[in-house]
Amino acid sequence: MIGASGYGGLQTVRLIQSHPHLRVTFLGGHGSVGRHWRELAPFLDPGPDLHVAQPDPDAIAAAADLVVLSLPNGQASTLAPALLERGLRVVDLSADYRFPRLEDWRQVYGGHGAAERADAGLCAEAVYGLPEFNRQAIATARLVACPGCFPTTSLLALLPLLQAGLILPEGIIIDAKTGTSGGGREARRHLLLAEAGEAVAPYGVEGHRHTREMEIQATTLGRSRPLRLQFTPHLLPMVRGLLATVYGQLSPPSCAAAQLTSHFLDTYRHQPCVDVLPVGVYPSTKWVRQTNRALLSVATNPHTGQVIVMAALDNLLKGQAGQAVQCFNIMLGLPESTGLPLAPFYP
Amino acid sequence: MIGASGYGGLQTVRLIQSHPHLRVTFLGGHGSVGRHWRELAPFLDPGPDLHVAQPDPDAIAAAADLVVLSLPNGQASTLAPALLERGLRVVDLSADYRFPRLEDWRQVYGGHGAAERADAGLCAEAVYGLPEFNRQAIATARLVACPGCFPTTSLLALLPLLQAGLILPEGIIIDAKTGTSGGGREARRHLLLAEAGEAVAPYGVEGHRHTREMEIQATTLGRSRPLRLQFTPHLLPMVRGLLATVYGQLSPPSCAAAQLTSHFLDTYRHQPCVDVLPVGVYPSTKWVRQTNRALLSVATNPHTGQVIVMAALDNLLKGQAGQAVQCFNIMLGLPESTGLPLAPFYP
Amino acid sequence: MIGASGYGGLQTVRLIQSHPHLRVTFLGGHGSVGRHWRELAPFLDPGPDLHVAQPDPDAIAAAADLVVLSLPNGQASTLAPALLERGLRVVDLSADYRFPRLEDWRQVYGGHGAAERADAGLCAEAVYGLPEFNRQAIATARLVACPGCFPTTSLLALLPLLQAGLILPEGIIIDAKTGTSGGGREARRHLLLAEAGEAVAPYGVEGHRHTREMEIQATTLGRSRPLRLQFTPHLLPMVRGLLATVYGQLSPPSCAAAQLTSHFLDTYRHQPCVDVLPVGVYPSTKWVRQTNRALLSVATNPHTGQVIVMAALDNLLKGQAGQAVQCFNIMLGLPESTGLPLAPFYP
Amino acid sequence: MIGASGYGGLQTVRLIQSHPHLRVTFLGGHGSVGRHWRELAPFLDPGPDLHVAQPDPDAIAAAADLVVLSLPNGQASTLAPALLERGLRVVDLSADYRFPRLEDWRQVYGGHGAAERADAGLCAEAVYGLPEFNRQAIATARLVACPGCFPTTSLLALLPLLQAGLILPEGIIIDAKTGTSGGGREARRHLLLAEAGEAVAPYGVEGHRHTREMEIQATTLGRSRPLRLQFTPHLLPMVRGLLATVYGQLSPPSCAAAQLTSHFLDTYRHQPCVDVLPVGVYPSTKWVRQTNRALLSVATNPHTGQVIVMAALDNLLKGQAGQAVQCFNIMLGLPESTGLPLAPFYP
Repeated sequence: MIGASGYGGLQTVRLIQSHPHLRVTFLGGHGSVGRHWRELAPFLDPGPDLHVAQPDPDAIAAAADLVVLSLPNGQASTLAPALLERGLRVVDLSADYRFPRLEDWRQVYGGHGAAERADAGLCAEAVYGLPEFNRQAIATARLVACPGCFPTTSLLALLPLLQAGLILPEGIIIDAKTGTSGGGREARRHLLLAEAGEAVAPYGVEGHRHTREMEIQATTLGRSRPLRLQFTPHLLPMVRGLLATVYGQLSPPSCAAAQLTSHFLDTYRHQPCVDVLPVGVYPSTKWVRQTNRALLSVATNPHTGQVIVMAALDNLLKGQAGQAVQCFNIMLGLPESTGLPLAPFYP
Repeated sequence: MIGASGYGGLQTVRLIQSHPHLRVTFLGGHGSVGRHWRELAPFLDPGPDLHVAQPDPDAIAAAADLVVLSLPNGQASTLAPALLERGLRVVDLSADYRFPRLEDWRQVYGGHGAAERADAGLCAEAVYGLPEFNRQAIATARLVACPGCFPTTSLLALLPLLQAGLILPEGIIIDAKTGTSGGGREARRHLLLAEAGEAVAPYGVEGHRHTREMEIQATTLGRSRPLRLQFTPHLLPMVRGLLATVYGQLSPPSCAAAQLTSHFLDTYRHQPCVDVLPVGVYPSTKWVRQTNRALLSVATNPHTGQVIVMAALDNLLKGQAGQAVQCFNIMLGLPESTGLPLAPFYP
Repeated sequence: MIGASGYGGLQTVRLIQSHPHLRVTFLGGHGSVGRHWRELAPFLDPGPDLHVAQPDPDAIAAAADLVVLSLPNGQASTLAPALLERGLRVVDLSADYRFPRLEDWRQVYGGHGAAERADAGLCAEAVYGLPEFNRQAIATARLVACPGCFPTTSLLALLPLLQAGLILPEGIIIDAKTGTSGGGREARRHLLLAEAGEAVAPYGVEGHRHTREMEIQATTLGRSRPLRLQFTPHLLPMVRGLLATVYGQLSPPSCAAAQLTSHFLDTYRHQPCVDVLPVGVYPSTKWVRQTNRALLSVATNPHTGQVIVMAALDNLLKGQAGQAVQCFNIMLGLPESTGLPLAPFYP
Repeated sequence: MIGASGYGGLQTVRLIQSHPHLRVTFLGGHGSVGRHWRELAPFLDPGPDLHVAQPDPDAIAAAADLVVLSLPNGQASTLAPALLERGLRVVDLSADYRFPRLEDWRQVYGGHGAAERADAGLCAEAVYGLPEFNRQAIATARLVACPGCFPTTSLLALLPLLQAGLILPEGIIIDAKTGTSGGGREARRHLLLAEAGEAVAPYGVEGHRHTREMEIQATTLGRSRPLRLQFTPHLLPMVRGLLATVYGQLSPPSCAAAQLTSHFLDTYRHQPCVDVLPVGVYPSTKWVRQTNRALLSVATNPHTGQVIVMAALDNLLKGQAGQAVQCFNIMLGLPESTGLPLAPFYP
């Protein structure tokens, strides 16, 4: 586990603690080198009996078979090549390998240091870690790029419609609502409780960097003609949870919610981490809080021919660390939800 | 003030307390008859020195010139005719007079008792209390039907575009996010902190009863051809505040955000309770918390030809009681924002 | 499981779902008879495949060996005798059997119907279900009365000091802070998010009904001379969690925090559900959220000779349903924390 | 106004905006020099038409008669002497002048740079800005040191008892609960919504730096023999608000709540910003949110001879900026609550 003290790292370690077949054998980091896990997380007991170490590839290879990278964008790609060379299999939680073409990554995340990346080959090889639509490729992958919370939620809502040609690719809107833990554990003013509490506001309305990733994957995995999306994230006064409300034009416009729900049920019938709600029951993020489960519901507006898909998940589990463990399970040939909580402690 | 103990009543009394030209002279209610205001609101000091009384029209007429009705839907219309006969001017916060045609109201709110209403004439006479687009009619009205928080926010966002023909009437989507106080002060399970805290969920996705009201007013006040809207409200874990994110297709599709913002600035230049933010600055509900001000921001997606208008207000002030006082000010020839807070105590 | 739809019932069913040796075979209730579990809890999948039934003792005895009663105070005692007669073992989450003398219960909870209770024998037989201080009695009990969140937290903080005579019995203060889920799932105005959000207030400051229970148990389990407590609960704007800050006079007054911490560590060394933090590290309710673990920390004020014990737990698990499962584990001879989560998903 | 962009500065500017006799004529700061107020606070409209400038004493003296210093501890004392020399009257919101003896300040806040302070004379001259107990001295003061939220709340609760000898000075406990805005606007991890949300925890349990200030002022203003306090602050998941629950031993122990309440009513009868609630009504921070009002309630425990005083206020108004304006009003001979909100917009 590299990047131990952020929320992604905390969740991953916590999940592995109760996983019957995985164990944390190396904790890598930068800011907290030399500190014991116990200091970083006095609330996780018993945590791994480990100190945080510099992420040296040889040391990692000596200790582990699988690596999760939970590092800021642009840093995973400085480490992944060396890990793969040493025969490790890598699941990356950053955006570094989510674009099959390095050039696309550069356009979105470019800037400081982006010019130096020369791993276009790995970008092409990396497998997009959305198990429900990419299981086979994940099973044999050396390098998996897990989508984050926004693309996971949005793609789970959109792909069944795109694949079946039930939605027009033009004019699709994703209105997303997220808790503040999605912004990470670094102290930033707008994520203070005093600022974000009792407030809701949109951000990144024009050209959010997740938009391009979703457009590319919606086209690829959705087997659709190229499309452009409007993606509008909103910051909500809660810790965890992500809800995406996805709008589009039905094709044909008269398609009924019951029919669409039935199609979604078919699509996700054998997916242990995705459930489809009955028509008229809408998902709450609270129903999936601290689980690796996504809940979907489909509605239609017969007056306008629009479809509305609502998708809820926990941004730090199915939207981040849980998805990584789900990918590990697939890579190891284990039942896909091994060690993953699927039912919440409500409320 | 009739309907004193709900949130609408509390806000109205509080606003009038610091209003230089209004005074609360009668408190009417049902559940709390005989109780002193001080018991209902130990936190409002000094509140009016009044006991809650049965809303008898003669007693009201003897005590007051203006009446605010803050009653459940269907009840205002049992009282308003008698009040108007006695020469009182009435501002109603319920939906009873928001539809020019009684028949439309029946379709949406019909059910128990709806058949008995026989005040189609008053429905036709009542003025829709959205000051920014109906000031002149409000000034001379006997009966004003104030729009609630969802229609106010949505119409402030939509009308400038519709009036100028800058948006296609087809396919407009209103994705709204509201605090739980919009659900009123009656104890209901889904509004408990334990249920609504740390959660976001959509509700009323298909055929919410505010949709029809917005469609009719958007057509009338927006001088548009008839339109159908997709309106999706979401319940958020906060007390106050409403944000509407409104999506539509631009006409022409290449219109720029700066140009649209300029049009919004023109529209609202002389409106003391509405402000337009610069391009790229998005409104937080916290910026208008406990004020009678609405904040708007306009963005565009050049790839898709879509416009995104974001509108924030306080659901209990500009979305309810503050708007009633704003209407009173207009009816009395006072400066429109008299006694109304416009700047928040942040955070 | 009797009383399925409240928070106690929800937690119990959820815990049993992932318990390796327990299974829900009967769901009893009053308000929701005939409804399927799936309707009550669409978020718990897969829940038990059961409909809620009237809690008929014969039907319960036919289906189950162990019963959890999660009913309002005064109702458990109308059912427990019949269940015990049929050879079932019962864990009660209400206050009905927490007082060894029925008379004490009557003084605190008396009123409607209290006069009719004639099960003084069962009151005397019932075992107080605080495993850390009553394990042996629980192991062989027919009837266990689990303490709720406030007494559990307070007694875990106080008993080590009382047993060792390190605190004066006079003048002890328990200042407790609780999330709103402790108030149950029934809709009540003061528990609405709009009311309880962004607020803190004390309640029941004089003679809260938990005070007497704590006084009796502190005397009995603490082997102390009779004592009177000041207990002040506060309602906090959060869903789950309970923190008690307990104050008293040290005996001798010069006792150091390190020494007391060492004594607490000794006391709880073999208790899997209680941990003691190092001096200077104070517990957050978030560190135990959705776990069955209590965290304690001890501080002293050398200027005043006071001891301050801080204790945090999850009010619905270690403070309610988790404690019931912990008692079941003991009654069945299983490892005490079987099926109980001890590490949180932070944040 | 010096220190414009923190919460203290924001509140002060907002209050002055609606004050009939004060105007902001100079905005000083460090981090944000050169920026226009409008950028710092897009939500405050119309704010002062000013840019933030270096706090040069001559420039300040040229622009203003009164100065509010809202700077980090240790910085006010580098500026105040020069301002006083130029004839300005200063209200300081930091701790720099809250101790009559510089030596006491050094002991508590000492460390980097503390040794350099040589303004012991000013420390002795400065008036402690608690209007309810120090009005006359404030009226003529050149330099007022406003107490912050914890001492204000605690002293309002304690002083009536101490002055009348109704409480023993030994063993007093202040258990305080505060919203996160009290921690300021600087980004710090533990104040993130993701960390502080859905959590309560104590901090600074041993030797919090406010304790000494309260002890000294309780002795001085309370006309008591020297006393030592136990002060335990807790961080709560809310933006604003402070509740102190104060415990002590009554003298005589049989004193009744009604009698004590009557004494409190007498003490605060002519204080416009403090109200005393009837016996059995306990204050919520929500009842004073965004007001300059403190609410008190007194209870007793006849079994233990203890008194419990509960005091609630808004930490940023009566606990900070509102108190500064209250002091200004007194210094200018204005009615004390001029321009200060006293009634909340509930909820």
